[in-house]
Order: sequence, then C-alpha cells, then structure tokens
Amino acid sequence: MRTYLDCIPCFFRQALEAARISTRDEKLQKEVLDRVSLKVPEFPLTATPVEMGEIIHKIIKEVTGNHDPYKELKKLYNEKALKYYPKLKKLVKDSSDPLLMSIKIAIAGNIIDFGPTSNFDLDKSIEEAVKGDFAISDYDVFKDLLNRVNEILYIGDNAGEICFDKILVEELIAFGKKVTFVVREEPIINDATMEDAIFCGMDKIARVISSGSKAPGTIVSHCNKEFQQIFFNSRFIISKGQGNFETLSDFELPIFFLLKVKCPVIGRELGAKTGDIILRLNPNFRKTLNNKR
Amino acid sequence: MRTYLDCIPCFFRQALEAARISTRDEKLQKEVLDRVSLKVPEFPLTATPVEMGEIIHKIIKEVTGNHDPYKELKKLYNEKALKYYPKLKKLVKDSSDPLLMSIKIAIAGNIIDFGPTSNFDLDKSIEEAVKGDFAISDYDVFKDLLNRVNEILYIGDNAGEICFDKILVEELIAFGKKVTFVVREEPIINDATMEDAIFCGMDKIARVISSGSKAPGTIVSHCNKEFQQIFFNSRFIISKGQGNFETLSDFELPIFFLLKVKCPVIGRELGAKTGDIILRLNPNFRKTLNNKR
Repeated sequence: MRTYLDCIPCFFRQALEAARISTRDEKLQKEVLDRVSLKVPEFPLTATPVEMGEIIHKIIKEVTGNHDPYKELKKLYNEKALKYYPKLKKLVKDSSDPLLMSIKIAIAGNIIDFGPTSNFDLDKSIEEAVKGDFAISDYDVFKDLLNRVNEILYIGDNAGEICFDKILVEELIAFGKKVTFVVREEPIINDATMEDAIFCGMDKIARVISSGSKAPGTIVSHCNKEFQQIFFNSRFIISKGQGNFETLSDFELPIFFLLKVKCPVIGRELGAKTGDIILRLNPNFRKTLNNKR
Repeated sequence: MRTYLDCIPCFFRQALEAARISTRDEKLQKEVLDRVSLKVPEFPLTATPVEMGEIIHKIIKEVTGNHDPYKELKKLYNEKALKYYPKLKKLVKDSSDPLLMSIKIAIAGNIIDFGPTSNFDLDKSIEEAVKGDFAISDYDVFKDLLNRVNEILYIGDNAGEICFDKILVEELIAFGKKVTFVVREEPIINDATMEDAIFCGMDKIARVISSGSKAPGTIVSHCNKEFQQIFFNSRFIISKGQGNFETLSDFELPIFFLLKVKCPVIGRELGAKTGDIILRLNPNFRKTLNNKR
C-alpha cells in the first residue's frame, strides 16, 4: 500500500508520542520532530507508510539513545493479555464455530497498539469482536483454502496481541496444521519480537522465526532470506494488523489479512471504517484465483 | 502563547486541509507539505502557533497560486450566518440579560472556523452556547470595566462569525459605547477581512479598520501603525477566537478573550477543555489590576 498525504500529519503525531515515551526532554522531542521533518520531502508517496515508521523510530533511537522505549508497556500488555487466556479458551470451547471464534479473538487482540492509536479498551474490543460481525469477511474462502494446506505462515503484529494469536494458532494446530509464527527482529514500537513469543509460550506450540524486519510491518525486501523463502513458497498466510497489511497487500500471494481498522486511510483502502474488524483474502491473490477457475 | 510540540502534527493537518481546498493536484499538495517540513526545524517553540500559520498559508499561496482559497466558503458562511440574524436578535431581546446573551451568541459564532477544526454544526453551537454555562467567566469584571470606558476595540476572527459579532457590537452601542472593529488585512484561511465587514453591515454601525495582519491571528509587531496605536491605548479590548488569543495573551492589556476551545493545547493553556466556551479577562492584565487595588 502506498503512502497517502493524510499519513504525513499522522507520522508527526506518532513520532511525538513515541519521542515522549522515549524521553522527557522536550529539546530531544523537538529534535526528533525536526529530523523527521527533514525526511518528509525525500520520502516518496509510492513507499509504504511502514517505511516512514522505520525511519521515525530509527531517529528516535538515535536522538534519545533509548533502544526499546516500549519495553515496560510491552511487558505490561503481555501480562495483561495472558490473564485473558482462560476466559478466551472458554469462549472458543463454548462456541458453535471454534475456528471463527478464535479468529475473532485474534483480531480483538489487534487493538493493543501504540502506533496508530494509543487509547484502547481491551475488554470492549473483545466484546465487540466476539459479538459483532466482520465488516469484510472471507471466512468461507479461509476455511476452503485451509482444508487444502498443511502448513500456515502466521505473521504476528504486537506484544500482548500475540497471547490472543496463540488461541488461533492452537485452533489451527487442532485442525492438524503446522504453524510457523513470525516476529520482528528488533524492538520497534510495541511489535512482538522473539522475547514476546517465548513469554506467551508460542515457541512451545509452533516454530517461531524472525522475519528480520526492524520496521513496524514486513518490508519483504528488507527481511532475511529464511523468511523470504518461506513467504514466497507459502500456500496459506495469515497477516495480523495494519503494518503487515500496508507492506504485504501488493503481493499476489494467498494472504488473509486479520485486522482492526485503526485509521481512515486504511479504512478507505479496504472499503471499511475505523473500528471495523476485517478478515480479508488479499484482493491481488483473489484475482489470480478467479482467473484460474 | 508559545508553540507546543502538539501543534506540529496539527500544522501538517491544517496545511494539508488548506492545500486540498486550494488545489486538486496531489503533487502540489505534497509540495506544500514538503515546504512546511523544511520550515519546522527553524521554527522556534517560543513563537506563537499563528506565526507558523502565516508561514503555512504563504507557502500554500505560492505553491498553488490560489490567493483566496476560502473565498467561496467565506461567502457561504457569511450568507448562512446572516440568515440567523433575526433569530439571534430575538434571543437577545427576550433575554433577562441581553448583554450576556449577545456575548454568548458572539462566542457561538466562533465555531465557524476552518483552522483547528473544519467540522462544525452552527445550530448545535448556538444551542449549546445559549443554554450552557461558561467554563470560565469573567462576566462580572467585564460589566464592571465596561461601565468605566467609552470606547471598545473589538478584534474579530472569522467570516460568518462576524455576523454574530454584530449582535454583540449592537448591544455595546446600545450601552452607549463607541466600537472599533478590527479585521485582517488579507484573506487568510476564513478570517474576516474588510469585505466581510461590509457584507454584514458592520461598517454601518462601527468604525472598521484593518490590523494589517496577514496571519490567522494578530501578531502585533507585524500589524500596521494605526492598529498598534489604538491597541496599546485601548482600555477595553474584545478578542475573538483562538488565533487572537494565541497572539495577544502575553500583553498586559485589558483584553477579554471570547472563544470556543477547539484544541486540547488551548484548553490546557486556559484550564478548560475542547468545546468549552470562555469569557476570560487576560490573566496578565488581571495581575496588574490586582496589584493596583
């Protein structure tokens, strides 16, 4: 997905928020914004917003010297999310369609995000996702394709959220699938890294790999060879959250995007609105699929 | 009032909104944001946000060649506001305190703004202002000081809003006061200029002058000599809206700020919240007043 002009004010909003989490020194916060400013004119709108995210957080790390400003918040939300585990497992168990319920739960966890929005209510998100309908749902194709594959590549998004992903991963394993779960290489905002996967025990049930990404998304060309190889050979990919959607939507691969819409730009791109929950097969792959039929 | 870091993302949001009103060419819109970006590092936080507003709108005019992008919107809102005139006059006439009611009406008109926010509901604003209480009210001091002066300097804000100001100006005249009404020198956003004063007939009831300001506020050092002379000699000043507050709050002069709070930064500065209506004597003058007593 390209960058829209509406993303530019939002870059500054996010940069300021992250700078404030990284340092209390207003001069350093201003220096972050100044350095981001100088990057804007050379940033092409053809790039994805995540690429600017990577630049911004690199600047913040350089200016403040704080390489993991969200460390405490990530820990807090991992612990918080893990407490929901028994309740969420019960929701799945009691559901008439456990797979669908576990997908909804995984999307509910996507509310834990310090990028596009830092105000969130986890209980409300769970309730809405569980009770509510998808704004866009390709669940039928999801089930159909799932029956034809043995392996699933699951590209995670945030810390905290990863404990909710575990519910869906367990459900996929119960369906006899082998899951490879992907985390970021380095701390970036509150995105999940290997440490978070280990915290929630994802490594006990699935193979966990790093994509090599240091960005709040998956810029495939910047990823490591191992990830690239698995990615391009995958027959079933689950992509969580906006950052992964922004960076993966242009590939003609069987990617299901599971996310909560957090900004009007993504909403417009998807034909949905802020707050909507989405399960969508990559439109670029759907075209290929339809042409083949 | 100084600029806060929170103003920086907002500069870009406002620049984009105004650029879009000025041109449909996305390349030019991007050029506006790029040129604003380059100004951010050299902009001191000790300056008022209005000074950046002046820079931004100068850039938009230069890049797009459109010197009055809000012309149509201003016309529309002048016409819309003028239609309320009989209804508003009746509200004042039927009120037990016509002066207070006309102040509330003048503040209600301050909702017409394409700077901090472009979403507004005029009917709702009138209803809220008329029925609601001030979050901060120095009405007693306002009446007290009013009894001691003959002349009032009234610094206007926006087109459309100026038709609401006329209600208060007429009330002040009914109290035997002479009013000088101040407009901007050139079109800037939807701020009121001489043309708007003439449209609503302000020139028929008061002396109307230009401050010389080309900014969306009153940067006194950039204003013309005539205005500066009147301003520094005034014993009773009414200042409408955020832009005038931002640029005038540091002067130790008897200025009453009448405004609707449209952003959290101004809210914090005033000890109020977004949406509040405010009638406030300049705290810097109040100190002087208290020391004299």
